[in-house]
Amino acid sequence: MNEELELIFEEIKTLLAERKYAQLYSRVKELQPADIALLFEDIPMEDVILTFRLLPKDTAAETFVELEPDRQMLLISAFSDAELKAVLDELYLDDTVDIIEEMPANVVRRIIRYSSPEMRQNINEILNFPTDSAGSIMTIEFVDLRAEMTLDEAFEHIRTTGWDKETIYTCYVIDADRHLEGVVTVQQMLLAERSGTIGEIMDRNVISCKTGDDKVEVAQTLNKYDFLALPVVDNEERLVGIVTIDDAIDVLTEDATEDMEIMAAITPIEKTYLRTGIFETWKQRIPWLLLLMLSSTFTQKIITAAEDALSACVALTAFIPMLMGTGGNAGGQVSVTVIRGLSLDEIDFGDWFRVLWKELRVSLLCGGTLAAANFVKLLFIDRVTLSVAGVVSITLVVVVIAAKIVGCLLPIAAKRIRLDPAVMASPFITTIVDALALLTYFRIASLMLGI
Amino acid sequence: MNEELELIFEEIKTLLAERKYAQLYSRVKELQPADIALLFEDIPMEDVILTFRLLPKDTAAETFVELEPDRQMLLISAFSDAELKAVLDELYLDDTVDIIEEMPANVVRRIIRYSSPEMRQNINEILNFPTDSAGSIMTIEFVDLRAEMTLDEAFEHIRTTGWDKETIYTCYVIDADRHLEGVVTVQQMLLAERSGTIGEIMDRNVISCKTGDDKVEVAQTLNKYDFLALPVVDNEERLVGIVTIDDAIDVLTEDATEDMEIMAAITPIEKTYLRTGIFETWKQRIPWLLLLMLSSTFTQKIITAAEDALSACVALTAFIPMLMGTGGNAGGQVSVTVIRGLSLDEIDFGDWFRVLWKELRVSLLCGGTLAAANFVKLLFIDRVTLSVAGVVSITLVVVVIAAKIVGCLLPIAAKRIRLDPAVMASPFITTIVDALALLTYFRIASLMLGI
Repeated sequence: MNEELELIFEEIKTLLAERKYAQLYSRVKELQPADIALLFEDIPMEDVILTFRLLPKDTAAETFVELEPDRQMLLISAFSDAELKAVLDELYLDDTVDIIEEMPANVVRRIIRYSSPEMRQNINEILNFPTDSAGSIMTIEFVDLRAEMTLDEAFEHIRTTGWDKETIYTCYVIDADRHLEGVVTVQQMLLAERSGTIGEIMDRNVISCKTGDDKVEVAQTLNKYDFLALPVVDNEERLVGIVTIDDAIDVLTEDATEDMEIMAAITPIEKTYLRTGIFETWKQRIPWLLLLMLSSTFTQKIITAAEDALSACVALTAFIPMLMGTGGNAGGQVSVTVIRGLSLDEIDFGDWFRVLWKELRVSLLCGGTLAAANFVKLLFIDRVTLSVAGVVSITLVVVVIAAKIVGCLLPIAAKRIRLDPAVMASPFITTIVDALALLTYFRIASLMLGI
Repeated sequence: MNEELELIFEEIKTLLAERKYAQLYSRVKELQPADIALLFEDIPMEDVILTFRLLPKDTAAETFVELEPDRQMLLISAFSDAELKAVLDELYLDDTVDIIEEMPANVVRRIIRYSSPEMRQNINEILNFPTDSAGSIMTIEFVDLRAEMTLDEAFEHIRTTGWDKETIYTCYVIDADRHLEGVVTVQQMLLAERSGTIGEIMDRNVISCKTGDDKVEVAQTLNKYDFLALPVVDNEERLVGIVTIDDAIDVLTEDATEDMEIMAAITPIEKTYLRTGIFETWKQRIPWLLLLMLSSTFTQKIITAAEDALSACVALTAFIPMLMGTGGNAGGQVSVTVIRGLSLDEIDFGDWFRVLWKELRVSLLCGGTLAAANFVKLLFIDRVTLSVAGVVSITLVVVVIAAKIVGCLLPIAAKRIRLDPAVMASPFITTIVDALALLTYFRIASLMLGI
């Protein structure tokens, strides 16, 4: 499919170069807005503006939404006031807000100026919700019905108002005070007896969320119940908006990316990698690198304190990287598993003892296997003395057990005190496990080797 | 919302204990199937069976789909043949296939026996698709229309056949040979003039996938175009099924989890953490731990070879963990960023030089900052000699640059040779960077300290 798309892009570029605009138009209008946006990332800005002006109004707006912020900004600067107004009129509220959040102040002022007064007020309301709340991702373009409507009246209402709604398939039934009374799907309406009223077929057990709810939890709720949209109510239980499935997917994808970044000791930002400048990338990474580097002062002190033991038995130094590395890997494995489990709601704080008990047994198995393999290797391949092989292998078991315990408990504890568990991943765990590994190593060595 | 649910669960448990089945029924039937499934994980099996028998047929089937495999198996064993048949009749094909894939052979035989002959044939067909293909997650319950149908005929067709379709909102238009001709949404149909035909309003530029396409790519396509469903065609371009958005979300979520697991050196399996036995967990983790442990033979050899230098300047040993740790963290940061970028299609193989060039500059910035901070700390806090501070700080810059280069190039190279880039994450990168760090360290030490 991608190769096919590339061929079409090549053809369009040729048509642009040869100024064959009629053919260009017929080629472009067959494309999906998401693909036109891809094309626009790939051709010079003057061709973007020219092609954009050929697009039908609704396609133009949908394409505009899919563009990266820098292209959106250039397009807005190229728009006449009338053009800007035409695009803004076609946009859904949630998309307009997304765009405004990415634009510099002067562009925002221009967008606000050419929005309708009603839209302007709505934009301001949404911008006032915290960025991680359901309110910040909701849209207010939904179909609302009344319980006393007949099915025919309801369909007629959808037909007359459905043009500018983000989804018409889930309709919300409200009373005169906009309190949410029920929910009904177009599927239910189509399959029901035509003589009834909406009140008779609607589902009164509506699952809804509050404007202030965490957007990731809201997205997970949509996913859990396989809904296409979830209603958002205010503190007085009045329906104020809906969150649609396409936005929920974006939230879940972003959340997974963020978790991965935090687990790798990166401060997450919303921009994609190739669009992030090198200073921004540096700022995402350097605080953690610095912190982790400075925290290795502990390992440095531990080794300095053990200098005598190390010079008494120089062979011991050679196994430090293996012990620290294995500990870090063992701890990283369990911390990632637990962090993901917490974030998918598969693990709760209440499960901490089950998790600990499981990890204790798994770490005995893993530690035992590794120690056995290592013992054989040390004796027969590295040909160290029996006592050195013993020291290294026993340390290995202890380190793996300690790593697994630290790796499972820290993320759960972080969740409990409302820290992001993802912080307790490999880099952080490794720093703790490194210190533990060295302490254990030198303690066991001094006991067994008498140094 | 979760606390509210817990209260309802407590109430239901009391009603069960007091055998108040009428109240129980009215309480349970207000719940969503996904929540009834949660309840069923929480109460004894005999109560599950009892409550399950109270549910309306369609709710029962939807709840069954949401259950964990072990509960499904126990329920199937408790079912009479008639009950099993009733549940199977209500299931969609893709859900039946999901269940069959998790069940032991004797249960599968029983399911197959009580499926209709047509269903049986369809199950076998789907089971023949590779587990990571679009065919394996598609459903065959979709609405197909003909171009010559009038809108009224089409709505009538939906009304009579829409009961057992997984989605009715996107309808597919096929010719007599089942070739896909177009796609039309119920929204378009509701908003169109009533006098036209389907052929006049349908969209002829249909985006589809093949049965053999990778399921993750198919899920990403649904997400990219904000579709509710994507048609699946066979090699003769005949429509054979659709992939719906709820399954696409599950695929994307699973894929992110898998990536995280592979990046943490864990072999992914589909079961959730708490449902995986300790031997299975051991099997997921031990191969990688062993491999990584054995590969630290390199660092061991490098240190052994440098024994003389280390005994000449014992202070050098103390900085080994910091150098290796910082290298590992720096490499892990970039590898995770690049792996996620590759998997979200934000980075391509063609971008390798842009990525390398960016990382070169970022690593100079990061390495420089870290080395400067470290140099000051070494001189004024640790009070080492100027030359040792110099050796450690210069090594740090080189290690960070090497780590960032290895960390960005290996995942891209892996993608190129069709390996999973996620393998090239922190644990693997760390092993390479550890060896590079030590080699650099001892080489710079011998040059600057003359040892």
